[in-house]
Amino acid sequence: MSFSFDIEKKSTEVNLARAGVIHTPHGDIQTPAFITVGTKATVKSLTPEDVSKYVGSQAVLANTYHLYLQPGDEIVSKHGGFAKMMNWQKDNKPLPTFTDSGGFQVFSLGQALGHGVSKIATSEEISKRETIEETSNHEKLAHIDDDGVTFNSVVDGSKHRFTPEISMQIQHNLGADIFFAFDECTSPLAPKDYQRKAISRTYEWAKRSLAEHKKLGVSKATGEVQALFGIVQGGAYEDLRKESAHHMAELDFDGYGIGGSFTKEDMGNAVRWVNEILPENKPRHLLGIGEPIDILLGIENGIDTFDCVSPTRIARNGAIYTYDGRINLHNAKFREDMSPLSDDASWYTHKYTKSYVAHLFKADEMLASTLASIHNLKFLTTLCEDARKHIISGTFLKFKEDFIKRYYKTGE
Amino acid sequence: MSFSFDIEKKSTEVNLARAGVIHTPHGDIQTPAFITVGTKATVKSLTPEDVSKYVGSQAVLANTYHLYLQPGDEIVSKHGGFAKMMNWQKDNKPLPTFTDSGGFQVFSLGQALGHGVSKIATSEEISKRETIEETSNHEKLAHIDDDGVTFNSVVDGSKHRFTPEISMQIQHNLGADIFFAFDECTSPLAPKDYQRKAISRTYEWAKRSLAEHKKLGVSKATGEVQALFGIVQGGAYEDLRKESAHHMAELDFDGYGIGGSFTKEDMGNAVRWVNEILPENKPRHLLGIGEPIDILLGIENGIDTFDCVSPTRIARNGAIYTYDGRINLHNAKFREDMSPLSDDASWYTHKYTKSYVAHLFKADEMLASTLASIHNLKFLTTLCEDARKHIISGTFLKFKEDFIKRYYKTGE
Repeated sequence: MSFSFDIEKKSTEVNLARAGVIHTPHGDIQTPAFITVGTKATVKSLTPEDVSKYVGSQAVLANTYHLYLQPGDEIVSKHGGFAKMMNWQKDNKPLPTFTDSGGFQVFSLGQALGHGVSKIATSEEISKRETIEETSNHEKLAHIDDDGVTFNSVVDGSKHRFTPEISMQIQHNLGADIFFAFDECTSPLAPKDYQRKAISRTYEWAKRSLAEHKKLGVSKATGEVQALFGIVQGGAYEDLRKESAHHMAELDFDGYGIGGSFTKEDMGNAVRWVNEILPENKPRHLLGIGEPIDILLGIENGIDTFDCVSPTRIARNGAIYTYDGRINLHNAKFREDMSPLSDDASWYTHKYTKSYVAHLFKADEMLASTLASIHNLKFLTTLCEDARKHIISGTFLKFKEDFIKRYYKTGE
Repeated sequence: MSFSFDIEKKSTEVNLARAGVIHTPHGDIQTPAFITVGTKATVKSLTPEDVSKYVGSQAVLANTYHLYLQPGDEIVSKHGGFAKMMNWQKDNKPLPTFTDSGGFQVFSLGQALGHGVSKIATSEEISKRETIEETSNHEKLAHIDDDGVTFNSVVDGSKHRFTPEISMQIQHNLGADIFFAFDECTSPLAPKDYQRKAISRTYEWAKRSLAEHKKLGVSKATGEVQALFGIVQGGAYEDLRKESAHHMAELDFDGYGIGGSFTKEDMGNAVRWVNEILPENKPRHLLGIGEPIDILLGIENGIDTFDCVSPTRIARNGAIYTYDGRINLHNAKFREDMSPLSDDASWYTHKYTKSYVAHLFKADEMLASTLASIHNLKFLTTLCEDARKHIISGTFLKFKEDFIKRYYKTGE
């Protein structure tokens, strides 16, 4: 079975939003969808059955960079790909998977973390953009040239090199249904000149990724067809975003990724600029973005799939999404709160009280992270499912406004 | 429904071994059985569904001392008991549970840990027994008098007091089906004079526990009948063990616990001395013992149920029981070992390779502990199930000898 994308229903309210279905060799993904992140071929603190049964995830995304370093993509290939390795399957058949290109980790672990900012910077951070030396900390962890990038492993400090061709070879070994062309993901604080250079490089690397993928054929790990997505970059600049979208649109990718970096404020705009240019009949994935508001803005502006580590990362710190905003279970008031962790009685985590989960956090028990992660992933998964229903019924805008009004009015 | 015990089949090979069924208000326990420990009302790193479905545990034992300190037994009672609080249930009905008396934690966290030994001491450690000051570190964390014990919380250092009456009141709030009389669990290194004093105290406290339990009636948390077990102590001394067994046998308990401390070498003897005296028609639980060899010796000498933190504790360090002995997944040779974590294809953990789980340990991923814990608990649960079958078929001794021969011959 091969890869295809059907648009089921275009929004009657906004230009870009749509409900669709991505068909992969390992099953369908109803979109819009939140893709659960399993960085090192495990969704942190969850069994794969927790992910499929309790979260209801349709697909898992693993990180090329991490699996290349450990256990190594050859070992993953021997397992028959990372879905089989991690037991991401149902009735003994692997479920849909993604891998990212490795670009974000290789560059941004160096540059963005070197700058002390996260993927989405605040306007204040962005305002300092022009004052930062282009290569400061960046160069220490990764050296970029037009052919590829040389970097030091976060595992043991050893030296490695990624090129578009190597990224494709690795991702063929990892065996995901959907994978990404090698790109340069810049820091949100990089100056415009640098961002311009980066999109040219990303364009050249996209062409080389496509050529290498065609040369390799089916996945070495699974023997199945893989779908390659090209990545649009360009930071927060309208002209660069549009140029990069035109670059990618002209290449024969199966779908598209939109890479950071944005300010929180102009993420919706940047996505719109790009999606107005990308071919309508191919799926679009917004890389590494996942706060509830970001997801709704992304969907409104034509995004089909999302992934983000945030729901499980904040869960491990006790933070829980609720329709009335985010709460933190470390707060003493939850110790005697006998209300369920999740309001909806159909959710697995409805079976536990806030009091009990607060006890688990206080006792530093691993189950605290498990239950909070299941809840937060279910929250975002449900948000996407609800958005899909409302696109189909023509009520998306009211749904979005009601959600945002309630979430931000009473949240902590 | 109330509590009872049926002996299904007495061993035709050895005097004391038997296969039985413990009936509780929340379901039956086929014995011999390994009871999974959920210290703070959670089995470390597992969901309750992992415990019931993947391990196949029949009951969970929680610690009175820990739940009293946090979240507090009143909060547990508001949940309807710890089984409901932790979602240890099937089809919305709570499953069987135990709580210990708090005696082991109160005393031994002070005395035994103060002596730097674990519950089962080696002969070498025991040989130093008489040279150790009776009250040295012991007194710092717990002060014992004939009425009860005053101790400092391991959570926040605050001062607390347990008496037999308080232990009963707490355990009625926790709501387990089977709970234990308040006892004094001494260090394996305590001198004989002290052990003698301790069994007299345990006898007096047993009578007070029984009186308080009768006064309290059904569990405050669940409204159900609870079964109270008396605890036999006496260290490694034959005369003291027998005296303590006679003490308990004359009291109207629903069953009996046998408390540490033993040497590894004479555990089987100590259990035999006691079980030859205890009434045959009541169940016997060996507290806190759980290495495979200990379980088989316990069953041979008339033990019906076991609990121990060891299988999950060693799992978190990468150690895995196999029929060929214990292995450790941190060993580099497992990185490319594509054999399944568990040989038996019917076990959940058969779905994962040793290579993958070794990767998870190396990456410090929580799922490593989860999978290793499921495997080790399933191993001991299966060992008890197999022992039961072989008692019924009259082949227990050969089963035991074959197991020990294989386990100790090639193990690391």
